Amino acid sequence: MIPTHKLEMSVRDYECDLQGIVNNAVYLNYLEHARHTYLLEQNIDFTKLHAEGIDLVVHRIEIDYKQSLTSGEAFLVTTSMYKKGPLRVIFEQQIERKSDKKLIAKAIVTGVGVCNGRPMRSSQIKEFDALD
Amino acid sequence: MIPTHKLEMSVRDYECDLQGIVNNAVYLNYLEHARHTYLLEQNIDFTKLHAEGIDLVVHRIEIDYKQSLTSGEAFLVTTSMYKKGPLRVIFEQQIERKSDKKLIAKAIVTGVGVCNGRPMRSSQIKEFDALD
Amino acid sequence: MIPTHKLEMSVRDYECDLQGIVNNAVYLNYLEHARHTYLLEQNIDFTKLHAEGIDLVVHRIEIDYKQSLTSGEAFLVTTSMYKKGPLRVIFEQQIERKSDKKLIAKAIVTGVGVCNGRPMRSSQIKEFDALD
Amino acid sequence: MIPTHKLEMSVRDYECDLQGIVNNAVYLNYLEHARHTYLLEQNIDFTKLHAEGIDLVVHRIEIDYKQSLTSGEAFLVTTSMYKKGPLRVIFEQQIERKSDKKLIAKAIVTGVGVCNGRPMRSSQIKEFDALD
Repeated sequence: MIPTHKLEMSVRDYECDLQGIVNNAVYLNYLEHARHTYLLEQNIDFTKLHAEGIDLVVHRIEIDYKQSLTSGEAFLVTTSMYKKGPLRVIFEQQIERKSDKKLIAKAIVTGVGVCNGRPMRSSQIKEFDALD
Repeated sequence: MIPTHKLEMSVRDYECDLQGIVNNAVYLNYLEHARHTYLLEQNIDFTKLHAEGIDLVVHRIEIDYKQSLTSGEAFLVTTSMYKKGPLRVIFEQQIERKSDKKLIAKAIVTGVGVCNGRPMRSSQIKEFDALD
Repeated sequence: MIPTHKLEMSVRDYECDLQGIVNNAVYLNYLEHARHTYLLEQNIDFTKLHAEGIDLVVHRIEIDYKQSLTSGEAFLVTTSMYKKGPLRVIFEQQIERKSDKKLIAKAIVTGVGVCNGRPMRSSQIKEFDALD
Repeated sequence: MIPTHKLEMSVRDYECDLQGIVNNAVYLNYLEHARHTYLLEQNIDFTKLHAEGIDLVVHRIEIDYKQSLTSGEAFLVTTSMYKKGPLRVIFEQQIERKSDKKLIAKAIVTGVGVCNGRPMRSSQIKEFDALD
């Protein structure tokens, strides 16, 4: 079991839209960056796997937006990860504002490994053994 | 009841990531653009509402990624919309590749109106009457 | 000599920043998309060249921002292209608002072909012969 | 005279395009974020000025791309700033890779203050006095 991962980031002005708040799609950027940082710390290199013909792709996302982040705000992305069935890897992620610890968003992201366009068993990706 | 809306778009190269496919967050951009185009055709102007102090914000997104879009591919975004309870507006959206009519992604997006940080009843947004 | 290329696009809300206008970086997205569309019409496929080991990369951009585009505005991107010296390809590009024909931005973009990290002579890229 | 500002950042995977390198437009995001961070440290708040009706906008950018950044690479953005004439503020910026200190890009960015669509004298923006 891998411990929960925490990554601190802060909002950049170009990530805010004309409402003055972070655009809904940008939160997926934050979550992806946290997942890739996490995977890298487990020696799972998204870019290297791609070069070897294995693509980790997002299969499903459920995200609840609770509050909005605005210009300059610092936040923590928390990520935990586990295998589900033979194919799926689940990431449970939360974004929390640093100043008042309010929950900004929470998401469940399902990932699968794909090789030549076909789903792979997560057991075939040796880097994932650390998840067992 | 408002008929289903269709918008044709195509992938721009800068929307693809290092895997050579459209990045997961970019689909939310596509879906938002389709929603705003749709709303505008119903005379609901996202930007004008913001200037009047009413922000339409995304409350929840569920999205299933079925296939990947790649460089240059044309696709159709289909959007239908209905009210749910006193506060919520639901958008059911699909992205379909034009060449082979394959389903690329489908999503359920929940929106709410917010005024001074508080949720508004959708019945208070007169532009939404057309949805009844 | 290749005739000037024109591409019509329009602003998507997520491309506007908290000032309510299109963010300065997004204009480079528009210009790139116009260049790639143009190249594709000359049978120069950016993505296919990458797969063959040749990367067309941007070497220098000079861009003057004259006016701002805002939500929903339609605009024309005009692109012309010529070789300069043995290595460089120059794109002269303009963005013009459709409604009032005002000049929004103009740019000179210098591109080079790169293979294994080294600049290529443009004469070695057979697809570029059409530019002579 | 304000000392040169340094900001360390690193490449996020979603910022790379299908060539596996950071897309040309993303460097403008990096540069903008460094400028806004810098301005904020001088008590010039881009977002607050916007709320007061003053928009700092980019008037011209010249950028030379020397090398490409790729997935995960750390880099330093260096920014210095001075007034030029009654209207303009000039930012000289460089991006340098952290690992080998190679110059990645250098840029000259011209900014102007705009109020009700008209250029302002930089002397009218009291926050800019610190630049004298």
